[in-house]
Amino acid sequence: MPTGLAHDREDGFDELYGLELIEVDDHLVRGRVPIRDELRQPAGVVHGGVYASIAESLASIGTARAVMPAGQLAMGLSNQTSFLRPITQGTIHAVARVKHRGRTTWVWEVEMSDDQQRLCALTRITVAVRDGSAPAGR
Amino acid sequence: MPTGLAHDREDGFDELYGLELIEVDDHLVRGRVPIRDELRQPAGVVHGGVYASIAESLASIGTARAVMPAGQLAMGLSNQTSFLRPITQGTIHAVARVKHRGRTTWVWEVEMSDDQQRLCALTRITVAVRDGSAPAGR
Amino acid sequence: MPTGLAHDREDGFDELYGLELIEVDDHLVRGRVPIRDELRQPAGVVHGGVYASIAESLASIGTARAVMPAGQLAMGLSNQTSFLRPITQGTIHAVARVKHRGRTTWVWEVEMSDDQQRLCALTRITVAVRDGSAPAGR
Amino acid sequence: MPTGLAHDREDGFDELYGLELIEVDDHLVRGRVPIRDELRQPAGVVHGGVYASIAESLASIGTARAVMPAGQLAMGLSNQTSFLRPITQGTIHAVARVKHRGRTTWVWEVEMSDDQQRLCALTRITVAVRDGSAPAGR
Repeated sequence: MPTGLAHDREDGFDELYGLELIEVDDHLVRGRVPIRDELRQPAGVVHGGVYASIAESLASIGTARAVMPAGQLAMGLSNQTSFLRPITQGTIHAVARVKHRGRTTWVWEVEMSDDQQRLCALTRITVAVRDGSAPAGR
Repeated sequence: MPTGLAHDREDGFDELYGLELIEVDDHLVRGRVPIRDELRQPAGVVHGGVYASIAESLASIGTARAVMPAGQLAMGLSNQTSFLRPITQGTIHAVARVKHRGRTTWVWEVEMSDDQQRLCALTRITVAVRDGSAPAGR
Repeated sequence: MPTGLAHDREDGFDELYGLELIEVDDHLVRGRVPIRDELRQPAGVVHGGVYASIAESLASIGTARAVMPAGQLAMGLSNQTSFLRPITQGTIHAVARVKHRGRTTWVWEVEMSDDQQRLCALTRITVAVRDGSAPAGR
Repeated sequence: MPTGLAHDREDGFDELYGLELIEVDDHLVRGRVPIRDELRQPAGVVHGGVYASIAESLASIGTARAVMPAGQLAMGLSNQTSFLRPITQGTIHAVARVKHRGRTTWVWEVEMSDDQQRLCALTRITVAVRDGSAPAGR
């Protein structure tokens, strides 16, 4: 992934399900995931966890990019995904927009659409921002 | 997977991230996922989307098992996952308990814990129940 | 309230907390609530339930206006409110925008701001749409 | 309200909708609200915002009781309420149970039932815990 943003490991979950980052800044992050059989649930449509995963990654990447230079960490607090329309083929197109950049939490809204630009899933992500020296746990 | 419950495809998303079903009935579904590098996010902990995926699967499987014999379909409506504590190694242990079994929606609460039985993520899933002849879309 | 939309009772909860409807159509509903002492929690800021209530009402009113002429009912399924910034005085300004209008569920995003137009709370509402003859319960 | 817990103002929102506290400790908070016409929405059932408000109060009171003696503040971050069954009369019975007590966030699950002990609404509340000297905003 050509972002150079603490996202350079080649063997993680984003690689497993196939996230492709397109645009990353502090306010907006875009990505896409080509659909393949490994992303389906038993009924044949894209598994709901795929949408939740995409949203989680885009919001986390956008927050981390902004706060890491100041020595802070971004940790997901919650992921609220609504499923509006199933997708069976093509590509999932995702765009994350920041709604709130607070001292301790950032909030993003992520929209995911199919190739016909129909909205298929909607996620709100809350990311906690913590000092880099803080121990694990929320 | 030895459930024989419309969950017999060998190439879907549950197989990709490694869900192992342990117990399935209408009120309670148990599963687990062994952690491996492919499930991590860039900071090295389990990706938030993995928890959301596990919860989505357990609730959907539990609902489908109950309503499919009557010719109905189960479709996820929403997935609300809270991240309480990161996991870095071992196994994710998940248990889904049904909280509401209505005519048109079922609601499940899913708890996910680490090997020390510490609660690490919490998900509420709402599943829509529809007639099998209904067209796609919520 | 001058909407003439099944919202003409004078003694309900919207009246209790003081909702004023400004604009109502199928895609967008606007309202506002003047802050008074009866809306505060013990620390002196507006109670979180007030934001959740405003959002619930705007989304329900917008959906009901659209589906009632066809003999259908609108029933709230879920309300997911994030609190971004406390408000202590002035007016809460709310705008609800529809994100999905499906056969059985509508999804709205509601933004609530203070007099300085700072985003203070964010709600996603899912409303079930049912035939008027359906019995109670979701 | 006989708790003596920073909940002694007589003119706030809890008084407006009629919250009665029954039991308050760090792990569990119980309350109830008698239903009256002022709590209804136009269709005649209890307004969804009432459930969200009750849950918000119980979780906030339980957290504040525990952290205020250490000079910390409790501020609601999110309220996720699912509506399972409408209530038209009688009393709303609510019990909040803590699921996570972290350094910076507490998570509660709140169940609300009718007089027949049927589960009618379910809320997850995330409360931020901050130092008392921190400025407003999340």
